[in-house]
Amino acid sequence: LRNVVVLGVGMTPFGKHPDKSLKDLGREAIYRAVQDANIELSQIEAAYVGNAAAGIITGQECIRGQVILSGTGLTGIPVINTENACASGSTAFHLAWMAVASGLYDIVLALGAEKMTHPDKNRTFAALQSATDIEQLSSFPGYEEHKEGQSIFMDLYASEAREHMRKYGTSLETLAKIAVKNSKNGSLNPYAQYQQAQSLESVLQSRIISDPLRLKMCSPISDGAAAAIVCSEKIARQFTTKPVHVAASVVLSGRPRNDQEMDSVQRAAGKAYEIADLGPEDLQVIEVHDAAVPGELLAYEQLGLCPSGEGGRLIESGETEIGGKIPVNPSGGLISRGHPIGATGLAQIAEITWQLRGQAGARQIQNQPKVGLTENAGGFLNGDNGTINIHILTH
Amino acid sequence: LRNVVVLGVGMTPFGKHPDKSLKDLGREAIYRAVQDANIELSQIEAAYVGNAAAGIITGQECIRGQVILSGTGLTGIPVINTENACASGSTAFHLAWMAVASGLYDIVLALGAEKMTHPDKNRTFAALQSATDIEQLSSFPGYEEHKEGQSIFMDLYASEAREHMRKYGTSLETLAKIAVKNSKNGSLNPYAQYQQAQSLESVLQSRIISDPLRLKMCSPISDGAAAAIVCSEKIARQFTTKPVHVAASVVLSGRPRNDQEMDSVQRAAGKAYEIADLGPEDLQVIEVHDAAVPGELLAYEQLGLCPSGEGGRLIESGETEIGGKIPVNPSGGLISRGHPIGATGLAQIAEITWQLRGQAGARQIQNQPKVGLTENAGGFLNGDNGTINIHILTH
Repeated sequence: LRNVVVLGVGMTPFGKHPDKSLKDLGREAIYRAVQDANIELSQIEAAYVGNAAAGIITGQECIRGQVILSGTGLTGIPVINTENACASGSTAFHLAWMAVASGLYDIVLALGAEKMTHPDKNRTFAALQSATDIEQLSSFPGYEEHKEGQSIFMDLYASEAREHMRKYGTSLETLAKIAVKNSKNGSLNPYAQYQQAQSLESVLQSRIISDPLRLKMCSPISDGAAAAIVCSEKIARQFTTKPVHVAASVVLSGRPRNDQEMDSVQRAAGKAYEIADLGPEDLQVIEVHDAAVPGELLAYEQLGLCPSGEGGRLIESGETEIGGKIPVNPSGGLISRGHPIGATGLAQIAEITWQLRGQAGARQIQNQPKVGLTENAGGFLNGDNGTINIHILTH
Repeated sequence: LRNVVVLGVGMTPFGKHPDKSLKDLGREAIYRAVQDANIELSQIEAAYVGNAAAGIITGQECIRGQVILSGTGLTGIPVINTENACASGSTAFHLAWMAVASGLYDIVLALGAEKMTHPDKNRTFAALQSATDIEQLSSFPGYEEHKEGQSIFMDLYASEAREHMRKYGTSLETLAKIAVKNSKNGSLNPYAQYQQAQSLESVLQSRIISDPLRLKMCSPISDGAAAAIVCSEKIARQFTTKPVHVAASVVLSGRPRNDQEMDSVQRAAGKAYEIADLGPEDLQVIEVHDAAVPGELLAYEQLGLCPSGEGGRLIESGETEIGGKIPVNPSGGLISRGHPIGATGLAQIAEITWQLRGQAGARQIQNQPKVGLTENAGGFLNGDNGTINIHILTH
């Protein structure tokens, strides 16, 4: 496999964009990434496009990437459409990485784009439900109450939160501190859907979505797109003396039946550490999948930042804040940056790229980090994640 | 890039399977391919899964591959879901090829599965429409009359047929002979949806779908799945002394704006010939995308089997029959084998694999062929194909 680098990244502001279509959003992210990479659009040899919801939300399936690209003039190249629920963006990035690592192409595009908002909210929720085995849906806890107008995913996260509270004595306040931290980070991020720092009280007093989760502990419904220009190390030398390298690209779906010990995040992270020849102690900046706060809490433990059960202590210590020892979600995470599901994985890649380059503005981590990790989760199946994608970037 | 081989293939019979779900169909194809490859299911390291319609037909999006695989015990591996309209199956095969060619994995699965039938036929047609830019749908010829209960694709094929008739004097009878040939081939194929040879009269007398196309000149609505086990040449040596090689794997979406001369099939085939270092004169068996008869007629010319405008003469000559010089669609093609859209590309790979191995039963081409090609088209955008995937297999 050849060495692969991220030559450029770009994203739209995340948020509710009633005036912008999936095409508009996707194209804006592409133009920004192309500009950041300092290449011409015509140098892109292939495109890998992640989107999860357009089929159910607008009826656009099948050739989603081609439809987005057709307005840019980038036609006549290979376009691969991919989806892996909330991890569609990092799946597109993985395919782009594989295409370059294989030697098949030198410069490719990875795009994640999603328009979740729709005047009929039931379409949005139907799209979210489709990230499970829909035949199993009716057996989910809380499905009966929530089947209209709410995603079952918050019930799943709530059940993880309750289990952590029961097993390890984690308090509601501790959980809420993750949302407080991420809202503070989001307030420094011009791309974030929510740019207002929240107090602990404000988080705790927001309405209950699925006990113990409050509204401000959960990611919102969002529109947005993010893109990366991925290329070979050799080509990158024409553009930059110090590119961002892809040290590991791992996609794993769920867990093997006979493995009761490790969940899918642990397994995927373990593989990524092995490939990159690094461990959790080497990480200097991390973006995790905090679709709701338990996602981040558990990721602390699953990624090996702290022992099992000590996620609560880690957030309380302040070490995962921007000024701490191992900043997590400096972008604001899914909770504050927003979560246009197919775009999130590439927004994480963009954030880590900016942090490693020292270009993250007001939210830049001091002593410019050299090693970053992204964790992007998608879907739910048989009690585990539908997919977990881990990327390690180095600079 | 490493050399890549097809170690095993399998498919379900294509047809209307009201009693079988997408999961049932997908799993059956996987089990058959695994058995054909003579491997254990657990040896599969990654899966690339093509499906185009489940989101709109059943509401199952996002993790379609994982949902199909979960019942097989094949969990905890990377699963990549991909779609490219009617070329989703060959897109999955291309990704599987890339994964092995890159050296990332040694043994992977490519699966294409589709359940098109639904008690509400409008869902089926909505799924087919989604293979266009749905915002442009209303500007399509015939859209107003056909928007309920019929695919606009047959209008597009009809318009191609009329143009060929006008420009080259091709007759309706000549067009119908492609359907006659393919129905004869389908009558020899136990996997085919239609296994009855049709007379010229019967084809011409079937009802008009979109003038000049008659029902029996068009592919039907189908359910089915097809799979391939793809592996490195080195690993294949443990299983077989004479594997089927992937000599070229090309995916191209539409045509560049500035290219008025070559359509996407010509461009993709040209690339494939270059990569395989072969020309149309070397081909001994071909499966093309005859979603309707003009698809096959034009493919004769676009693939270089005959000069432009002489497709009609080629079918009249009998040379594309099973006993002819260059048999096309010995399986019966999409018209007779059926067209479960995401599965078709892998059914083509399966057919060519069987033909190259001399295992095609009653439809086996004499003097066992050594070089075969598949052409799988998907979607429609800006006057050209959404994607064209060409594979060349050698033995």
